[in-house]
This record gives sequence, structure tokens and C-alpha cells, in this order.
Amino acid sequence: MSTLRQMDRFFNPRSVAVVGASRKIMKAGHTIFSNFAENKRRGLFKGELYPVNPHEQIILGFKCYPSLLKIVGEVELAVIVVPAEVVPKIMEEAAAKQVKAAVIISGGFGEIGRHDLEEKVKTISKKAGIRVLGPNCLGVLDPRTGVDMLFLPETKVLTTGDEMITTPRPMSGPVAIVTQSGAFGVSALDYLAGKQLGISKFVSFGNKYDVAEPEMLQYLLHDEETGVILLYVESIELGKAFMEIAKEITIKKPIVAMKLGRTEAGARAAMSHTGSIAGSDMIYDGVFSQVGIIRVRNMKEFFDVGKAFAFQLPASGRNIAIITDAGGPGIMAADECESNGLIVKKFSRETMRKFEELKRVGKIPSFATNLNPLDLTGSVNSAMYETSAAILFEDPEIHGIIVLGLHHTPGLLEDFVDRIAKLSQNHAKPIVACDIGETEMAMFIRSRFDKFGIPAYSSPEDAARAMAALVKYGLYLQKNGSFVQYMKSFWDRTRSS
Amino acid sequence: MSTLRQMDRFFNPRSVAVVGASRKIMKAGHTIFSNFAENKRRGLFKGELYPVNPHEQIILGFKCYPSLLKIVGEVELAVIVVPAEVVPKIMEEAAAKQVKAAVIISGGFGEIGRHDLEEKVKTISKKAGIRVLGPNCLGVLDPRTGVDMLFLPETKVLTTGDEMITTPRPMSGPVAIVTQSGAFGVSALDYLAGKQLGISKFVSFGNKYDVAEPEMLQYLLHDEETGVILLYVESIELGKAFMEIAKEITIKKPIVAMKLGRTEAGARAAMSHTGSIAGSDMIYDGVFSQVGIIRVRNMKEFFDVGKAFAFQLPASGRNIAIITDAGGPGIMAADECESNGLIVKKFSRETMRKFEELKRVGKIPSFATNLNPLDLTGSVNSAMYETSAAILFEDPEIHGIIVLGLHHTPGLLEDFVDRIAKLSQNHAKPIVACDIGETEMAMFIRSRFDKFGIPAYSSPEDAARAMAALVKYGLYLQKNGSFVQYMKSFWDRTRSS
Repeated sequence: MSTLRQMDRFFNPRSVAVVGASRKIMKAGHTIFSNFAENKRRGLFKGELYPVNPHEQIILGFKCYPSLLKIVGEVELAVIVVPAEVVPKIMEEAAAKQVKAAVIISGGFGEIGRHDLEEKVKTISKKAGIRVLGPNCLGVLDPRTGVDMLFLPETKVLTTGDEMITTPRPMSGPVAIVTQSGAFGVSALDYLAGKQLGISKFVSFGNKYDVAEPEMLQYLLHDEETGVILLYVESIELGKAFMEIAKEITIKKPIVAMKLGRTEAGARAAMSHTGSIAGSDMIYDGVFSQVGIIRVRNMKEFFDVGKAFAFQLPASGRNIAIITDAGGPGIMAADECESNGLIVKKFSRETMRKFEELKRVGKIPSFATNLNPLDLTGSVNSAMYETSAAILFEDPEIHGIIVLGLHHTPGLLEDFVDRIAKLSQNHAKPIVACDIGETEMAMFIRSRFDKFGIPAYSSPEDAARAMAALVKYGLYLQKNGSFVQYMKSFWDRTRSS
Repeated sequence: MSTLRQMDRFFNPRSVAVVGASRKIMKAGHTIFSNFAENKRRGLFKGELYPVNPHEQIILGFKCYPSLLKIVGEVELAVIVVPAEVVPKIMEEAAAKQVKAAVIISGGFGEIGRHDLEEKVKTISKKAGIRVLGPNCLGVLDPRTGVDMLFLPETKVLTTGDEMITTPRPMSGPVAIVTQSGAFGVSALDYLAGKQLGISKFVSFGNKYDVAEPEMLQYLLHDEETGVILLYVESIELGKAFMEIAKEITIKKPIVAMKLGRTEAGARAAMSHTGSIAGSDMIYDGVFSQVGIIRVRNMKEFFDVGKAFAFQLPASGRNIAIITDAGGPGIMAADECESNGLIVKKFSRETMRKFEELKRVGKIPSFATNLNPLDLTGSVNSAMYETSAAILFEDPEIHGIIVLGLHHTPGLLEDFVDRIAKLSQNHAKPIVACDIGETEMAMFIRSRFDKFGIPAYSSPEDAARAMAALVKYGLYLQKNGSFVQYMKSFWDRTRSS
């Protein structure tokens, strides 16, 4: 039985039993069962579905079974959401029922010192050959197959009686999320849903006594939906298995990692959170960089960089061109680029000559600054962005483009986005965008860029850091001779979707 | 004539002439005049208003004058928006008319190499004693007096014919914005308007041949509306005048500065943008820290820190407590605090004892981690946040509190915000908040915190950096013996508003 097939059962099971399913709306077992039931009614979840609970006859129209053993058909996957003390008994029954995989949502094991209980469950599952996610986890969310084990309902009712979206599920898309912290995982879903960025798979490991990063990563390597992997870890087994699979993946798909506990207080908090020693931060830095994992420094960068990889090719070198209609933000981008190891050097003589020619014939403002950043000034219009971007796309010395399109400029309308996007589709050169502002048109411009596959950010520095990740990864691919292969598979993925 | 009275004319003039006012909607002179005209109709702008344009008889119902000299009444302030070549003639007329102050919106002077033209205008204005803002600037926006010189209209019509908010004006509030870059200034307004953060004054200097930072800062020192000054500079005269006034201000009001051009590319861009040499970055660091200016590293931090000072007191020490309902984000906050020089140490024995007692009586979860961060876990409810926060507010060893309230937790409703806010009002200890997510409830929770005067951020790291600024400033005030005085005036400002 291959790892891939084993892992696939968590994301695409033929049959699922929710042990601990409940009619009581405040219970985790209710939310999880009702997620499956609703997705089945919508035709999204196609497997068999069984609620298991000795105290219920029927839940949301489904016949309820007193135990796994009473289910007549096959049960491929058991989602277990009962008190920790009961889990060993359930696992015994799962073994007897020849269940193939289990997700233990319940907490109350190693993370609160109950290593004995965890060991007991582990022994049973190992003996029976049941692959296990958890315990103490959120499990899996797969928007394509309708598997949704999140015990957090999508909405909440406030003290006023108003219902509000609280834990939205993102749409389908290229980002896989692999997280050790369930709570952070849920936040990530909320963030990505709000930013309209789709996910391929979501998996929360919890105590990960059986399935851990290496196997999950291996599965994601072969998952066609997954274009980029966001990996959140507090502690990880940095052994051979992890390093080998990571190396294999990163020549094909970027892994963006957020590893916490880099300070003393952070490490102490990580230890009390997941009960594991964070390890020297420098070791993580070393291993990650050796296997081509892009490490980010904070939450915002985690998502920003993920978005860049979802939409754009890596860069083939460090030379970045900046186009702007606002001097100050151009400087911010230049500063942040160079602080992150990118090069924002003066344009080549040939490119300068082209811009001078554009000035001469009035196609860009005569007082535009063309040193890099190219500052088209507040007199810019959409055609000027297009003409200038075309020159930069064609300049072989430039490896990536940052477009700052501050919409406030009087003569600039939204079609500059369309024009730049059209150019971008004909060039294998990464481009990221920024518009500043938190009201209507700023949001509209950013989402328009996003829709065309140009990741847009709300500050010049965010855009520069996203570009820095595209450069870092591009250099890694080149070093490993896999740049061209990556580009090919990136195109296959993005053109087909 | 005191500087204060001179500067006040830019923000609260008895009479304004807009030279270059126009009926043509695409012209800057139209937008500026119509801003004043509309604000006058609404009763917001209370001064006299005169359009000046030899080619028009009437503009938006106002009699138009062919020149400043033809206006019968006094003209205190002239807003000049005519081609650069015409500005010397207008300035001559302003001198003859005994205009007291002028804002030259027009570009086309030193910034594009026309130092001769700038010198000519300067000579005329100096001789006549006219105080000048600009040239090449956006001028002034004051939501209280209705002075609005922004030539960028609030809305724009897209290629589809749809009208959209593009350059919103923020409401009235405690943040003063002093910016060298007009384009960035406009972005800042868009950002603050969207984040519901109000401004006291907005001033864009441009080439600043006459009025520059020292006088403007002096004015803002005495401006009761201004609680915090956001200062954006590309180059600044770091002379005695600046240092003296900055020192005088920072014991009374925080100045948050963003100074660009810290890298080679950034410095080159800054030089071509405003024609000035950026100077060694380390010199700025030294001067800023000597005079108590809080320097930020990027745009996002600029606004985040401004918001912290608008709402919260500085901290009296470095010891920070973190309360969370999610382990991962708690670690993120701890990491970022310690990376910024804050201390997240274990709670005192007394405070630990109190938390243990709460566990014993079931008032917080028995498996909560109380080392700092205090992790109340996903079993938290609103009462637990309140009880725990009360203990931390009362602990004299803790100087500031970061509340991470991830709303996804099933048992947590919005009233935890109200409960914490109520506690906060009875304690002189700074508190900042975070909720993660970009959909309905996350935004609701953050804006609820904001409304109660607790600045809320969308990532744990942003919250930690905001707290770091409150600590840095608090330590500066203590060193200068002005902490208590600042607290008093902070209360006067925030209680009265």
C-alpha cells in the first residue's frame, strides 16, 4: 500500500464514519457531521457517510449507529470526536471494523501530559495498521471533495442575535496549508477566504503521533491541485525523511515555511503549546535553506509569499525594475528590494534610450525619471504604463517587475491593469503589483490585478518582499538545474486552471 | 507676527483666493476650488472664497476675478494652481495685494531642474513677507475648517462609466500627517479613511523653499487637535531648528517618522524624486533617537504605530503580557516582542498563583498555559478573557498587554471586547489587540476594539510592533522626566474627544 493511497484516504475517502456525531449544535461532533452531511446533499462529498453515537437514532436525516461495529458497509475513514478517555475503545472498534484511516480530533493527550493515553491509542492503531492524523487536531478540509472536518461552524450568532461569518471555507485553488497549530490554521482559512485565494488541501496535524510532515508532503508533491505548500511548524523532525522529501518537492513546487519560537519567550511558548522543544533556530535556517524551503519571518509574509507563488513564476535573477506613478512609494519599494538582497540598478543604456525616445515623442511625461524606479509621475495614464512595461518585459537584464499603480493619479483608469496583465501573459518574467489605500478603488485595483494572476499588495514593501521570495526560489531552482522544468509545469498548472 | 499665527493661515484662513480656479472638471484648479466651494456651502469652511481666472466670469456660482488685484476684500491666503511660468507674475500680484500666505500647488520648479524659476518666486515672496508652502505640493487638508487643497477628486469615473471612491478624505481625529511626498500623502489619506482613523491636519510640503518641518512642527505642538504626528521625509534639514523643536514636541506628543532612501537604490530614487541628497541613514537614526522621534521601517508600521499612539498611553517599562486563545499566534507575538527589545518573561509567582486559583475554581480552563503567553485555549469564553485581563492589569510588574482574541473559538462572542475595554478604562496600562482573518467577524472584532480605543491589528506581529513603539516612547518620556505630564495631557485629549 503506497503512502499516496494511504494519504488520499484522508482527503478523498469512499466512506466516512463520524464517531461522536451529535444533534446538539454546540458540540464539535455536530458541526463536523453536519459539514459532511451538507456537502453530501450538495453532491460535493461523494462517499458514504455514517454518524456513530450510542445515544442517537438519527442525525440530520442520517441513520445513526451505536458503534462502528454496527455499520454494515465498509468504513474507510473514521473521524473521531469523543472524550479522550473513550478514544482507545473507539480505536479498538476501528481495528475490528478494519477501518483504514482515522483522524482523532479530540484533545486531551500528550499536549496536556497524558502521554500514557496517547501511547495506548498509538499501540492499537499501529498494530491494526490504521493510519492516524492527530490527536488534538482540526483534521482535513478539501474544497474539491467536500471533506470538511473543521469543528468550527462557518457562522456564529452574536449576543445581539445577529449571525455573522466567522470561519469561512476558502474556494478551491492552488495553495496547500499544512499546519501544526489548528487555531492558526483556521485563521489562515479566514485570511485566504477574505483575500479570495483558493486552497487545494488543508491539513492540521496536532500531536502527529503517526502521520507527520514527510508523508503529507509526499502526497502534496503528487497532488495536481497543489501549486504551493504553506507549512506552519512549531517543531519538526528535521531528519532524513523530511529533508529528502523536501528536496524532492522544492525542485517542483515551492514550500513556504513559517517556523516559530525564534526567541527565548517564543521557544518557551512553543514548548508549552505543543510540548516539544523548538530546537535551535539556526538549525532550522540551515536545513530549510539547504533543501530549498523559503522561510518567512511573520504571518503577513507567509500569506503574501504564498500568493506570489500561486500566481507567478520565480525570477531568473536578482535585477528588479520598479515602475511607479508616485515617487515616495517607489523609494519604499527600492529600499525594501535592496534590503532583501535584490538589485535595483540603473536601467541599461539601451532601455534608457527607449524611455528617452518615448519622452521625445510625448508617450511618457518629459519629466519622468527613468533611472529605476521609472517614475511616470502623477501625469501618467494607462497607455504610458503599458508602453513602459513592454520595454521592461523585453529587457533581458531585468528579471522581475514591480508595478506600483497608485490609482489616485487623476488620469489613471482601471484599464492600466488589463493592459499590463495582457503583456505579462506573453512574457516569462515575474511581476507583482501594489496599490495603496483601504477604500473602494484601491481594493478594486488590487483585486483586478489578482484576477489577472498578478499578485497585488497593499504596501510597496509587501510587494518587494513577495518579489524577493520569487527571486530566492528562482535562484535555488537554477542552482539545481530545475528552473526550466518548473516553468513548464507551472504553465501546465496555470493554463489549465 | 508669531510663527503660530503665520502657520494658522494655511489651516484656518479668513479669506482664500484660488488662482487658476477653473470650470473644466479635469483641471486641478477645478477640483481645488470646488472643494472649498462645497465645504463653504456646507458651512464647514467659514472664510471668504474667491476664484481667480481671467478667462472665466463665474465658477460654481462664485463671481470670478481676472486677477488677485481685482478682489475688493482682503485675501489672506492664495492657493496658486497655474503653470509654473506664470507663478512669478501671480506672486507679484499677491505681494501687491498684501496677501499673507500662499500655497504653490504647481510643479515645474526645482524638482525638474528649474531652480532659476523657483529662486525668482522665492525672492518675490521673501521680499513681500509672504509665507509659502510648496511649490510642487498638495498643500493642506483640515477636516475641521474645511480647507481642502487636494487637487484629486474624491471619486473617479471608470472606463465602464461607474463612479468609485478614489481619494477619500478621512474624518476628524488626532493624527497629523506631515509629508514630503504628495502622492504618498494621498495614499495615507486613503489608508486612514479606510481604517476609520481620523486626522487633525494634513500638510504636503513639496519643495519647501520657505515653510519646512520646524515651523510646521511648532504649529502642531500647539494644535490641540493633534495627538500624534506622522512625519514622512525623504530628506530633511537636520539642523538646530529641527532638533530643538523636535525635542520640545516629543516630550508632549509622539512623532513617528518614516525616512526613506536607506539603501543605495532608495537613496538614488530619493535624489531624483525631490532633487535632494538623502544623507547617511545612520545620521538620521542617531538624530531621531536623540530627539525622541520613533522611526519606523515601512509603510504598514508607520500607520500601525500612529494608530497605537492615537489611542493608547505609552508603556512605563518593557515587560509585556500576552493573552491568547490560540497557541501559534501567541508564539508569533512573543517572538516579535522579544525581537523588538520587549520582555515576555514568565509571570510573577503571585500572578501565577492567581491563575492557578482560577483554574481550581473552573474560571479558566484547567489546561490553560499560564507562563506568558497566557493561553486560554479554544475553550475560552468572554468572562475568562475579562477575569484574566483583570489580573494582568493589576500586576505592577507588567507594563503592557497584548490581547490576541481569535474569534473562531466556538464559545467566544463579541462581548469579550466590551469587557476588556471596560477594564482598560480603569487602568493606565497600554493594551493592543489582534484578531486574524479577512472576513466578516474578524473585521467586526477589530473595529469594535478600535471603537473602544484599543488599537486592533490583523496579525500578532503587527500588534507586537505597535506595543514596541509604545514601550520605546514610554522609556524616552521617563528618561526625560515627562512621563506623568504626558499621561495627564493624553487623558485630557482622549477624555474630551
